[in-house]
Amino acid sequence: MKLNQDGLLVVISGPSGVGKGTVRQALFDMKGHNLVYSVSMTTRQPRAGEVDGVDYYFVTEEEFKKRIEENRFLEYANFVGNYYGTPRDKVEEQLALGNEVVLEIEVQGALQVKERKPDAVFIFIAPPSMTDLEHRLVTRGTESYEIIKERLEKARREIGLAPEYDYIVINDDVHNAADRIMAIIRAEHARTKRCLDNYYALMEE
Amino acid sequence: MKLNQDGLLVVISGPSGVGKGTVRQALFDMKGHNLVYSVSMTTRQPRAGEVDGVDYYFVTEEEFKKRIEENRFLEYANFVGNYYGTPRDKVEEQLALGNEVVLEIEVQGALQVKERKPDAVFIFIAPPSMTDLEHRLVTRGTESYEIIKERLEKARREIGLAPEYDYIVINDDVHNAADRIMAIIRAEHARTKRCLDNYYALMEE
Repeated sequence: MKLNQDGLLVVISGPSGVGKGTVRQALFDMKGHNLVYSVSMTTRQPRAGEVDGVDYYFVTEEEFKKRIEENRFLEYANFVGNYYGTPRDKVEEQLALGNEVVLEIEVQGALQVKERKPDAVFIFIAPPSMTDLEHRLVTRGTESYEIIKERLEKARREIGLAPEYDYIVINDDVHNAADRIMAIIRAEHARTKRCLDNYYALMEE
Repeated sequence: MKLNQDGLLVVISGPSGVGKGTVRQALFDMKGHNLVYSVSMTTRQPRAGEVDGVDYYFVTEEEFKKRIEENRFLEYANFVGNYYGTPRDKVEEQLALGNEVVLEIEVQGALQVKERKPDAVFIFIAPPSMTDLEHRLVTRGTESYEIIKERLEKARREIGLAPEYDYIVINDDVHNAADRIMAIIRAEHARTKRCLDNYYALMEE
């Protein structure tokens, strides 16, 4: 019996290049879960084949800024001229249905979510070593020395933010990492602070 | 990769009659774990077939009291004239070897452990309902009305101590309960507070 019936907001984050997306995919490929993925909202133009409400919610910049004013994002950021954000209402809807909502986001976004939803579960995906991460960042594309250098410095800053998270999961093997995240989700449902009200209700029945 | 390499001290407790022993047994019957059970020390006489160091460590009352003075128990109690306790040194030895040490103890003992080892993982095993627990306590033996009444009152007090624990696990099904405890153990190894030092060491390699 699961004492805490509400879904959990699970934030999967970590430095660029650590393989957050692959871990998240392995997690969703596991059997018997009730995880849902939060669809982001953006002001960028849809690409060929992208579907509104599936790949992204596509909105105008005016609409996006209005939503920022109304505090309707759990986190948002502007990348190269386009806004991207996590709509709060969609997340709340899914949580109330008992689904675990997974956000796979950059560390700056995760820190914003922590301010707005401190009871979410914050999981930091870490590389097996700094050398491993550097290798991934350097061999990722054919960018200039300057861009690679900037990327490495950013990764080092991001590595330093792990203490802000509840859990640190090493991505040495993507399936191990996904297994561990699933164990964290199961365990968090049993945490006293999350299920004490339901426990009292059950004992009074 | 498991960032926290030390074993965890896992305290499994809950009201009398809830089935702690059965849950603990189901946990140890699971595959691929490195759980060890802490052998208690007692002043009572060995029964036929009981082996010193396996079933209990059998010591004299004088020896036991000396160890109390020396603060060498994580918890102890006196039941009907005999002392029972958890020897601290044996637990520490196993933890240093990377084994998870499971204590299955009464709630009063668990509260003593919490004072001495606040970083242990405290799991409260709860019944699916108060009625269920009462039923188990009443049908347990052929005791007098007075003894049963006392037992029920004790159970109600013990049920109220759940907020002292980190996790609440309902024993509606013994295998579900054991699975959840295993998930808790896996998750706790990834908790930032337990693995931050190792994380920093790994990133500096």
